[in-house]
Amino acid sequence: MTYSAEPSDFKCQTLIIIGVGLIGGSLAAAVRERGLAKRIIGVGRNPEKLRGAIDRGWLDDATSNLEQAARDADLLIFCTPVDRIAAGVRDIAPACRCGTLITDAGSTKAEICQELASGMPMGVEFIGSHPLAGSEKSGYEHSDPNLFVNRACVITPVERSSESGLLRLTNFWSKLGSRVTTMSPEAHDRAVAETSHFPHLAASALAATLSDEHQHLAARGFRDTTRIAGGDADLWTSILMCNAESICGSLEKFAGILNEYRTALQNRDAAKLTRLLELGRQIRERLN
Amino acid sequence: MTYSAEPSDFKCQTLIIIGVGLIGGSLAAAVRERGLAKRIIGVGRNPEKLRGAIDRGWLDDATSNLEQAARDADLLIFCTPVDRIAAGVRDIAPACRCGTLITDAGSTKAEICQELASGMPMGVEFIGSHPLAGSEKSGYEHSDPNLFVNRACVITPVERSSESGLLRLTNFWSKLGSRVTTMSPEAHDRAVAETSHFPHLAASALAATLSDEHQHLAARGFRDTTRIAGGDADLWTSILMCNAESICGSLEKFAGILNEYRTALQNRDAAKLTRLLELGRQIRERLN
Repeated sequence: MTYSAEPSDFKCQTLIIIGVGLIGGSLAAAVRERGLAKRIIGVGRNPEKLRGAIDRGWLDDATSNLEQAARDADLLIFCTPVDRIAAGVRDIAPACRCGTLITDAGSTKAEICQELASGMPMGVEFIGSHPLAGSEKSGYEHSDPNLFVNRACVITPVERSSESGLLRLTNFWSKLGSRVTTMSPEAHDRAVAETSHFPHLAASALAATLSDEHQHLAARGFRDTTRIAGGDADLWTSILMCNAESICGSLEKFAGILNEYRTALQNRDAAKLTRLLELGRQIRERLN
Repeated sequence: MTYSAEPSDFKCQTLIIIGVGLIGGSLAAAVRERGLAKRIIGVGRNPEKLRGAIDRGWLDDATSNLEQAARDADLLIFCTPVDRIAAGVRDIAPACRCGTLITDAGSTKAEICQELASGMPMGVEFIGSHPLAGSEKSGYEHSDPNLFVNRACVITPVERSSESGLLRLTNFWSKLGSRVTTMSPEAHDRAVAETSHFPHLAASALAATLSDEHQHLAARGFRDTTRIAGGDADLWTSILMCNAESICGSLEKFAGILNEYRTALQNRDAAKLTRLLELGRQIRERLN
């Protein structure tokens, strides 16, 4: 479902962003610009690297000591790679005060939400988020306070998620301009396997077919089709690992269509080729 | 090879463009803007439809009678679908006067150049061209006089192609701003199978994997990766049919990489996934 109602107010005292890369930096900039938090603290392994984000006014402070920072926070957002989110939340939750909401910006949700569905300290709640925004660029230097505007953001409640936590999270992302949708973590992972994770794999495989000798003939079509293959390999490895099963499902669906193309080409079956191309064209056209 | 020397002058008296869609219309506009031809005649099945191109000053006249128009021409460019080019050239060559150069803008070259390598009337020469420019849009309404600027244009001479014809054609495309390269028709087809034709097929197959229910989550990555799938299905069928063998070759290369991804996902082999993603990333990065 999509919350289409006008978002209510959202305010927080202290927001902590763990992992200040493109998404974390953009969150800081977006929250700052909209005045949604009194204090914004960035947490990274090397806080000196975040000096620039402080200088730009996006962060009030940067630290590597999450435990100390978390004590005063009312909202924590994990923007670390997906394979580090659940453990990170688990580690810090006992240091949080009652009423703290923890969320994330990870591209996969089922593993993380399963791991955090129980055993959280009383009064501390985790609800998963996935803002569908990003870029093949990484690093907070490329941050954009409007990165989330008009983008979908999926919130993935589990059975015991509180109404108040859900409402608060919905209001937060809505205030940043996102179109908020809720789905179960599992449904989310199947959906993004199809719309994002497998397409990344396909773009990467396609890029890898290009021979050096033909590089000078790769025009706009090839460039657009493979643009997302420029993304960070480690980051995408953790995404593929966390959503391997759904991605394999999308791969088989794709391989089936590829096989139909292969047969049609081998048989020089023009009518079949037209049907296949027309199907792809129609589905693509709906996105315009 | 790429001709990097400053292009010499190119002039023609009467240029005939057969098939005035996006490419034909852009050629007319580009030639007009640069003053490269005294007269530009558009040939189409329904010349009334080309009234707009005359009104915009791109064409001097439009006709459906190619035979009559061809008598006065010194350069003819076939911008019809690839499966109609060779027969069209063969039909009209006897009506051309001595010294006429015929070329095309087709995306495949081997079949066309093989069919036209012999049996042309004395003094009338066909040399294939492929300007690597285009759009998922079609129709001369979307024409752009700068469509060919900084784009590669492949000229595909055969053994008996004349030096003077080659030089004239090179100068023509260079004057439109293209980076001219020469290749054999067969090498051209293998190259564009890899850089354009198979990527089109892959983008179309990827678009076809998108379920209705997940459409609202297809973000910029999916849109870019599948943009070219929006191209005209009939046009692309004729391209796939004319270059089926090379495209099958690219498909097998791609399927091999896809298979490596499948195995790595099934085995949850993070190191292998990173190697595959890193390979795709590096090749893609060279295009930036």
